[in-house]
Amino acid sequence: MRERILRELMALIRFPTISAQPGARLAVRDCAAWLVRHMRGLGLQAAAVTHDGPPIVLGEWRRHPDRPTALIYGHYDVQPPDPIEAWTSPPFAPAIRGEHLYGRGASDDKGQLFVHLKAVEQHLRAAGDLPVNVRFLLDPEEEIGSPSLLRFVSSERDRIRADVAVVSDTRILGPDRPAITYALRGSLSMEVEMAGPPRDLHSGNYGGAVRNPLEALCRRLATLHDRDGRIAVPGFYDAVRSVAASERRYLAASGVSEAEAPSASTAAQWGEPGFTPAERSTIRPAIVITGLHGGYQGPGPKSVLPAHASAKLNVRLVPDQDPAEIDRRIRMQLTADDGDPVQVRVTTHAAARPVLVDTRQPAVRAAATAYESAFGRAPVFVRSGGTIPVVDLLSRALRVPTVLMGFALPDDGLHGPDERLHLPTFFRGIETSVRFLSELAVHDRRLSLPRG
Amino acid sequence: MRERILRELMALIRFPTISAQPGARLAVRDCAAWLVRHMRGLGLQAAAVTHDGPPIVLGEWRRHPDRPTALIYGHYDVQPPDPIEAWTSPPFAPAIRGEHLYGRGASDDKGQLFVHLKAVEQHLRAAGDLPVNVRFLLDPEEEIGSPSLLRFVSSERDRIRADVAVVSDTRILGPDRPAITYALRGSLSMEVEMAGPPRDLHSGNYGGAVRNPLEALCRRLATLHDRDGRIAVPGFYDAVRSVAASERRYLAASGVSEAEAPSASTAAQWGEPGFTPAERSTIRPAIVITGLHGGYQGPGPKSVLPAHASAKLNVRLVPDQDPAEIDRRIRMQLTADDGDPVQVRVTTHAAARPVLVDTRQPAVRAAATAYESAFGRAPVFVRSGGTIPVVDLLSRALRVPTVLMGFALPDDGLHGPDERLHLPTFFRGIETSVRFLSELAVHDRRLSLPRG
Repeated sequence: MRERILRELMALIRFPTISAQPGARLAVRDCAAWLVRHMRGLGLQAAAVTHDGPPIVLGEWRRHPDRPTALIYGHYDVQPPDPIEAWTSPPFAPAIRGEHLYGRGASDDKGQLFVHLKAVEQHLRAAGDLPVNVRFLLDPEEEIGSPSLLRFVSSERDRIRADVAVVSDTRILGPDRPAITYALRGSLSMEVEMAGPPRDLHSGNYGGAVRNPLEALCRRLATLHDRDGRIAVPGFYDAVRSVAASERRYLAASGVSEAEAPSASTAAQWGEPGFTPAERSTIRPAIVITGLHGGYQGPGPKSVLPAHASAKLNVRLVPDQDPAEIDRRIRMQLTADDGDPVQVRVTTHAAARPVLVDTRQPAVRAAATAYESAFGRAPVFVRSGGTIPVVDLLSRALRVPTVLMGFALPDDGLHGPDERLHLPTFFRGIETSVRFLSELAVHDRRLSLPRG
Repeated sequence: MRERILRELMALIRFPTISAQPGARLAVRDCAAWLVRHMRGLGLQAAAVTHDGPPIVLGEWRRHPDRPTALIYGHYDVQPPDPIEAWTSPPFAPAIRGEHLYGRGASDDKGQLFVHLKAVEQHLRAAGDLPVNVRFLLDPEEEIGSPSLLRFVSSERDRIRADVAVVSDTRILGPDRPAITYALRGSLSMEVEMAGPPRDLHSGNYGGAVRNPLEALCRRLATLHDRDGRIAVPGFYDAVRSVAASERRYLAASGVSEAEAPSASTAAQWGEPGFTPAERSTIRPAIVITGLHGGYQGPGPKSVLPAHASAKLNVRLVPDQDPAEIDRRIRMQLTADDGDPVQVRVTTHAAARPVLVDTRQPAVRAAATAYESAFGRAPVFVRSGGTIPVVDLLSRALRVPTVLMGFALPDDGLHGPDERLHLPTFFRGIETSVRFLSELAVHDRRLSLPRG
């Protein structure tokens, strides 16, 4: 049976569903059709829904009107495989070596969404029945910010109503260290452009007499942090919820720092005083300059006083920071008239709210029980520094609790070459999901939210 | 006669002698051979001297052992013609439209070096004789910093010994406003690289906990100037020679600011308090950030905490700043250990000393008389914010005074598309050079330096 499952998963990985590349459109359509066929084969109702963008794949099994419905979210698009020459085997020709299945999307997120499809299959083959109702929502564009899903969720909410949402796109700490992520940072992506002289000037003829937008940009960006590593934007920390000492002790003891947080060996630690490296990248917000561009980019020198300079920023937010409010405060600081004769333009590319899942809710307890039974060890609860915009989107649109049930490992190489899936963990994932669906039925009465 | 001269100059411009492009090597060799033939045709001894690099073209006429020798420097290489689509006629197919000859190098510097060749020709045709001895030194690499000339001058000084050096690679103020440049700023081209984490990291997982080299770079660069526009590097101004009030008044009255200095219409004025825009870009030094690079450069956002950041700097120096000393001070500021966990590396690409020509020396007086006779108006004396490294090189190697006898106009479009030569000014330049050589003989006794 395991061999058949792997053959199926390899077929799914073979579609080069690179959402960032328009040339992948056909592959995305073919992959959606494959998923629809596959779900129908399992006994689900399934459809690929296309509006303007690529198809959103829906599946459902709802034969128990008196029981809760779980909405399982996954994405079938993948990151570009570049640098392609760094792969040991081709990214879209999945290959098994040792305990791993190699291929783009093997872990992020085709392997993880397949975990739940195979769990549903196992229930249906064993009992001809599922313990709860299930809906699948498979996103064709997670890696580029889910624009089509965003429109879909707001216009066709009824097709995905549920009592609990399950998102499988996070990591556990190790093959024997299951984990449930209960917090995600929010994200705000901005761009700052500065314009100085109307055209590039000669640095000999004009240097010293004309405001240089590159220098103005550096000066403004340097004001975003103080010398100690705190963010120096007035009001930036106002809404930051402080984390109880007991929770900080729990997080420190759970060992997440070893697996995920930067260690002295990976990078120079630096950041807000009073917090550990792991805390700085999870329970505290950050402003990261992700790109600087301006003037001459080639080798050697050039005598130019450039007309334009720009920078990209990625802000990571924690509860209860509001992306719009933080956006406003950063804009204010970057565009403040300090007498500099430059034009400043700030663009916001994307914004996502931070997420905090209440770990006491029944669906999270069901997930914890399921992990423990499959992995032989209770999961720890961890906070991630990353962002999954769809989690906040689903929570707000459906007004249901979300459980982040991830099965990726820290060394799966997500977004990099030789991305891989750890097969023993994958099969334990299926066991976890099988048990989770049963547990949801047990916890039914405690799922306190209105039925969809 | 004018038509023949223009035909010859157009032949010279047709060689695409782009020193920055290795593919132009043959064109450079062919152009050198053309120049040698042309000079021999005029009655000069001529040779193209090649060591490792492209040929340096030498010419000489020295039949008066009792008279002084003028070394005339020009360069036959040109800037790349990009953007080529912005040219009205192809850059290497010279075309006359109205009063202008269009083509890459028409003004910078093939037209200007040709002025002197035609002046020598005129003397020799008219009298079979020259009033003084003449040597030509034609550089194949001025636009890329004259590396071959540098080696040549230090190893074969005797072949270019002279009593005065003439460099024709500067501008006058307008067709009826002759000018002699008597000061050039020096130049120092540096690059700063900052290294943070050993590889690009995810800004979600690591943001806030790892030192970002882009931010460290901005912070350091922002320390180079104070808020008012003064350079904030300790000791930077120590050696700056102050300019007498009388000279500042003279420069302000000479009108250079209209033609060359930045005006409100071209760019936002900004700089050192207490000086006019024209002064800031001529008698005062400057630090210009010419390039910024780091992290993600594409469209839209990317969640990256980059491993590397870099910036290019161009420092413009005035007498008596020493490039090595200023280089040391800037390095000290950029690499100072302020506790930031980043590696900083500073590279120096090129350095050239500032130049100040004594306007009272006989050769400059001879040039002034010559301009006045040809243009019907006495030249003004101006300072340039630019740098011609070879001027300092020749002055030091030969220990002779240098005269900057330029004939370019501010709107010749040097280094840009549709570069052009103003033909009436070109022919007045020939008249100027003819008279200059005669004046040098008149001033002979006052040329106080030892004969070469």
